[in-house]
Amino acid sequence: MRYLTAGESHGPKLTTIIEGLPAGMPLTEQDINNELARRQKGYGRGRRMQIEKDQAVISSGVRHGYTLGSPVTLTVENKDWKHWTKIMGIEPISHDEEEEIKRKIQRPRPGHADLVGGMKYGHRDLRNVLERSSARETTVRVAAGAVAKQLLKHLGVEVASHVVKIGGVQAAQTYRASIREIQQRSEASEVRCLDSEAELKMMAAIDDAKKNGDSIGGIVEVIVDGMPSGVGSYVHFDRKLDAKLARAIVSINAFKGVEFGLGFEMADKPGSEVHDEITWSEEQGYTRKTNRLGGFEGGMSTGMPIIVRGVMKPIPTLYKPLQSVDIETKEPFTASIERSDSCAVPAAAVVAEAAVSWELACAIVDQFSSDRFDALEKAIEEHRSYTKEY
Amino acid sequence: MRYLTAGESHGPKLTTIIEGLPAGMPLTEQDINNELARRQKGYGRGRRMQIEKDQAVISSGVRHGYTLGSPVTLTVENKDWKHWTKIMGIEPISHDEEEEIKRKIQRPRPGHADLVGGMKYGHRDLRNVLERSSARETTVRVAAGAVAKQLLKHLGVEVASHVVKIGGVQAAQTYRASIREIQQRSEASEVRCLDSEAELKMMAAIDDAKKNGDSIGGIVEVIVDGMPSGVGSYVHFDRKLDAKLARAIVSINAFKGVEFGLGFEMADKPGSEVHDEITWSEEQGYTRKTNRLGGFEGGMSTGMPIIVRGVMKPIPTLYKPLQSVDIETKEPFTASIERSDSCAVPAAAVVAEAAVSWELACAIVDQFSSDRFDALEKAIEEHRSYTKEY
Amino acid sequence: MRYLTAGESHGPKLTTIIEGLPAGMPLTEQDINNELARRQKGYGRGRRMQIEKDQAVISSGVRHGYTLGSPVTLTVENKDWKHWTKIMGIEPISHDEEEEIKRKIQRPRPGHADLVGGMKYGHRDLRNVLERSSARETTVRVAAGAVAKQLLKHLGVEVASHVVKIGGVQAAQTYRASIREIQQRSEASEVRCLDSEAELKMMAAIDDAKKNGDSIGGIVEVIVDGMPSGVGSYVHFDRKLDAKLARAIVSINAFKGVEFGLGFEMADKPGSEVHDEITWSEEQGYTRKTNRLGGFEGGMSTGMPIIVRGVMKPIPTLYKPLQSVDIETKEPFTASIERSDSCAVPAAAVVAEAAVSWELACAIVDQFSSDRFDALEKAIEEHRSYTKEY
Amino acid sequence: MRYLTAGESHGPKLTTIIEGLPAGMPLTEQDINNELARRQKGYGRGRRMQIEKDQAVISSGVRHGYTLGSPVTLTVENKDWKHWTKIMGIEPISHDEEEEIKRKIQRPRPGHADLVGGMKYGHRDLRNVLERSSARETTVRVAAGAVAKQLLKHLGVEVASHVVKIGGVQAAQTYRASIREIQQRSEASEVRCLDSEAELKMMAAIDDAKKNGDSIGGIVEVIVDGMPSGVGSYVHFDRKLDAKLARAIVSINAFKGVEFGLGFEMADKPGSEVHDEITWSEEQGYTRKTNRLGGFEGGMSTGMPIIVRGVMKPIPTLYKPLQSVDIETKEPFTASIERSDSCAVPAAAVVAEAAVSWELACAIVDQFSSDRFDALEKAIEEHRSYTKEY
Repeated sequence: MRYLTAGESHGPKLTTIIEGLPAGMPLTEQDINNELARRQKGYGRGRRMQIEKDQAVISSGVRHGYTLGSPVTLTVENKDWKHWTKIMGIEPISHDEEEEIKRKIQRPRPGHADLVGGMKYGHRDLRNVLERSSARETTVRVAAGAVAKQLLKHLGVEVASHVVKIGGVQAAQTYRASIREIQQRSEASEVRCLDSEAELKMMAAIDDAKKNGDSIGGIVEVIVDGMPSGVGSYVHFDRKLDAKLARAIVSINAFKGVEFGLGFEMADKPGSEVHDEITWSEEQGYTRKTNRLGGFEGGMSTGMPIIVRGVMKPIPTLYKPLQSVDIETKEPFTASIERSDSCAVPAAAVVAEAAVSWELACAIVDQFSSDRFDALEKAIEEHRSYTKEY
Repeated sequence: MRYLTAGESHGPKLTTIIEGLPAGMPLTEQDINNELARRQKGYGRGRRMQIEKDQAVISSGVRHGYTLGSPVTLTVENKDWKHWTKIMGIEPISHDEEEEIKRKIQRPRPGHADLVGGMKYGHRDLRNVLERSSARETTVRVAAGAVAKQLLKHLGVEVASHVVKIGGVQAAQTYRASIREIQQRSEASEVRCLDSEAELKMMAAIDDAKKNGDSIGGIVEVIVDGMPSGVGSYVHFDRKLDAKLARAIVSINAFKGVEFGLGFEMADKPGSEVHDEITWSEEQGYTRKTNRLGGFEGGMSTGMPIIVRGVMKPIPTLYKPLQSVDIETKEPFTASIERSDSCAVPAAAVVAEAAVSWELACAIVDQFSSDRFDALEKAIEEHRSYTKEY
Repeated sequence: MRYLTAGESHGPKLTTIIEGLPAGMPLTEQDINNELARRQKGYGRGRRMQIEKDQAVISSGVRHGYTLGSPVTLTVENKDWKHWTKIMGIEPISHDEEEEIKRKIQRPRPGHADLVGGMKYGHRDLRNVLERSSARETTVRVAAGAVAKQLLKHLGVEVASHVVKIGGVQAAQTYRASIREIQQRSEASEVRCLDSEAELKMMAAIDDAKKNGDSIGGIVEVIVDGMPSGVGSYVHFDRKLDAKLARAIVSINAFKGVEFGLGFEMADKPGSEVHDEITWSEEQGYTRKTNRLGGFEGGMSTGMPIIVRGVMKPIPTLYKPLQSVDIETKEPFTASIERSDSCAVPAAAVVAEAAVSWELACAIVDQFSSDRFDALEKAIEEHRSYTKEY
Repeated sequence: MRYLTAGESHGPKLTTIIEGLPAGMPLTEQDINNELARRQKGYGRGRRMQIEKDQAVISSGVRHGYTLGSPVTLTVENKDWKHWTKIMGIEPISHDEEEEIKRKIQRPRPGHADLVGGMKYGHRDLRNVLERSSARETTVRVAAGAVAKQLLKHLGVEVASHVVKIGGVQAAQTYRASIREIQQRSEASEVRCLDSEAELKMMAAIDDAKKNGDSIGGIVEVIVDGMPSGVGSYVHFDRKLDAKLARAIVSINAFKGVEFGLGFEMADKPGSEVHDEITWSEEQGYTRKTNRLGGFEGGMSTGMPIIVRGVMKPIPTLYKPLQSVDIETKEPFTASIERSDSCAVPAAAVVAEAAVSWELACAIVDQFSSDRFDALEKAIEEHRSYTKEY
């Protein structure tokens, strides 16, 4: 499977084409819209989230509720587009019009793609960068992830996420809840946090940041239950599935790190407290007594829950300005104020779910026979029996 | 550029083919052997490191000291191979021979690829897994990385690494030394640590672990100086260069996490303390007052030093055994003892350098005109002037 | 560069996303629509070509007439869609509706993807296959090719095509006309043929085929002028540019063969009449006295015109039916009659231009520095001077 | 699956690494050497074929006669290397040595990669080009193809080839023999021709060419029996299996065209004589009455024999020289005489088999579940039952 995304933040719409889905898999626009709605929730979001309720439209690859095996196109309109048809128009404009409508951005914001993106592509109007580097793009990544999530769900693989830290406020390590509980409790929380005490403090931290014209980041955790074992491979370094997840997580806007299982804590512990002992029983087949490695050994899924965390930096658009340089005058200035969220971590958890779901679905589809979805279901079932008895 | 690696831990040799190198770049076996030697050093290594001094042989793609533009083959012989010709023989064997020579491994070690790898590929002798999943493979990744490092060096891009934590012992955040100092001081340290006080404690921790039949992990940091800006791209998520580095780091055996710049600390700080202010001067062009983001904005290199850290779990081969299950009898046992290092973190720093060097060289070669190495040198120089004046 | 296409023949629309275009290249919808119109012309086309005048809409990656460096989305609406909303609906339908609206196709047509596609994807309604396997998809391949052609044109690379055979009628080998003449004369011909005598016979052959309820194929030739030399490479087999063109041509619906320069005739001639002698002059640099090899040596462009021909089989949708088998009853029947063209060779020439243009543009963008279009233009110019003096 | 090849014609050896093979497949060096020997046979070969009997050595990925699932390394030594250690040495040389040993080639041969390759990679000694562009590289392509062929064979897919034209001498269209007969009869012929009358004329044509200091080309046909149906796909143009074969064939040194089934003849026939009627019987499932399309519909294998032909131009190394230009003096000269074959078509048939086998094996491994070879065998068997009953 592969997909491409396209679309500017204030352009007419966002588009993604997904190629390689098995045929015969149930899929509706509602499946995708549910995920888009989840991405738009979250305490501390700015104005834009209110004005636009994202709706995906399927325009290929699905017929009467089932995938055809052909590429699936998803589009999400930018409802704001009508106000931007001049500034973001596709067709050439005259010099006079240019003078009139263009509000050139020549002041790059620290922490954004503005300056380096402008250099790279030779833009003098940095709007040409920020329109694409904006996290608005994650809308269609969530849409593609929603399709992947459907595929996983039908194969008995469930994905959940929750927020474990925001602005220095750490959620208590909760007793490992079931995947359903995590899904439900994170959904019920405005900050997607399972620890209700931390939740309140996180909201207070967001309020504080907003008041100070500042922004805060955090850590999200994605958990995957029911993953078949042996997906990914140790035989060549670029086939390791955890490494692919690492790439997927860090490719999300503003993510600056990723870890699996105990993660960076493993630098503090002896091996005897890091590795997971192996057991076998007739009912369960092979399992592990613990899951400190977060579901991976040798770059392959072990069958234990996948546990992956990503850290998101505070959103760089600040009301509290930082110093920068005008690219035309080379004069210093303090970076321009733009409408913004003060914390996007809860929404980012949904994006992280999407990114993880995509990689896992991809790896499954590539590894198992998967032209026909019913054949894939059967293959996964057989694989589960086989590995249990192995 | 692309490369494939091959070879079993006790097979005749390791091989890598590197395709896509520019022509006319100086390259000798010594360039590669220097890096292989660095990988074999390090306090706390086991016996194998002593018996085998790895030597790379170039057998294609280089003539009279310069690359030809054609694929480069590197091989590293396993000096031990003469003792393994029967057990690891290539040709078919009779049933009797099989009985005689094969010492089947049917007891998977926790934390290794053994069990899941065996399931995946249908092996009943787990030697068929561990021979390839072994970190021995990193030898040729270091070899390929050495070639990449040469390329970078000739373009004015310097790579260094050091160890920042071993077994819970944290090195003091040293005043940011020059890249040369980091290279020299880490090279002079038995644990590749810049903080001489921590160095002693790390060695003590390794001694302790050894005594206890246990193992310890740690954190390594790779620093890259002189990277041109604008390599990677924000326009499509899979073109982000930091995300590619994340994948490269996590694909190293036993690595379980990665972070850039302040990394996971960013979850504790407000945005105003995370983003790097932009300045410009005639001599330096655009720079940043700080480097908290570790050299990346929008998935592109900013021109500031790249700072990336990876966490390595303790080596899973334990003298202090963990419980596991025999795959034939399904009976529990405590995992078999094998010759092993108690800490491989210093060597892993060299592997991390190689993994990072490869990704950066690749990204540069893909982005700039690069059939001829002299043309690439000129292109980078022009790019540096252009971005300074931008 | 890469692109994905999507869309069913009677679905709402066709879509393509093109990723990797340089920034700052002029591009308008008109540039694309010109090519779409060329694809719709041609003697002997069926009804559909009349009812739908294809129009491309750009919805991302372009602003005020210039590319942004971000992915470009092109969509072409199927004007007929309003009549197909039930039969090709995206959303699930009830069993009753299914009975009512679905006209299941269970009779595979010989020469189409119907039977094998149905097996592969597990479809019992073969409409699920033919909607995607239809040559309607070539519309967006032409759209993507039009973008590639613009890129080439601005770099001084011109692409033309003409028809050299239809239904056994061979056009006379014309004196090698200039690329402009070929463009103009083929455009003026209803069958895109440069030989006006053969043109009339070709039209007569098409009329005959129509009358007989049969269909005919032919051979098209694509000629590319101004290609810089040294694009592609001999160093690894999968980097040969002529081999990539071969794949592109055969991937066009109904194409069954491809050849370069003298092509299959080379099996009849001695080497001394096949290879092109090399000359050099101060004005022209290196040239060849002849161009029997069609612009390639060692998988690289030589700088001489690229000459590539593809053979298209007769369109398989026949009024004159062939025998087939009903997949439900397994009873034989004679294949169902569908609206169809009796000859699509002239249109296929335009598709072949698009396929060739894409590969060439791709290869140029990959080989030269190409984030910024102005830098690419400069790079090509320097390359031309360099190779002249070499 | 993927593979890389490496090695210069007079370097120490040729190497290939094959990644992605299923585990548990029988494989020996003999399997590969059989194919290497076939490549070295053929009437009209030059001296080199006599002095070097190519032998493949496996140095990874195989243990006791079975694949491990890890990358397989194959090397073939150049027996001549001992005479070339100075001229082709890897290590840097002094200026004096350079004067002494280097016989710089500055006279590009028409029809070879020499001139354009030299420009591209900036070489002034064209030996740096011809050492890699030489057809010697096809040795390891045949080696990799031999592995693919083993895989196919164990799955009941048989590959054969024969020569249908040499130097204008056309073999009679033989009654379609069984795949075994084609294998045996082509093997018994010095020019791999099934028509014994044409065989004699072909040998005479080769003798003539040799006498005249000229060279001749020809056409080879590869036939594949037992291919499962539905491999490849119509859903996206770059997934068409015939298009991949076209690329593979044209990527062979000196190949200039490719066609499937009736191929270019389809431009002369009405559709009713081109498409293959479909039948079904309980014993055979779906078959076709004819096989004019050569085993493909919609870019997918139909289950009928695959028939693909490639045209090879005469070998460009001529005793009868062509005019060229010295790159240092820019003076014209007549191209230098080098040891050469006057016809390599019979050997090229073996290379074409290898190229085709690789693509087919790759496509099968990608489409079906294939970590374990026994599981793959079972999957193919089930697929065959399923498609029969479909």
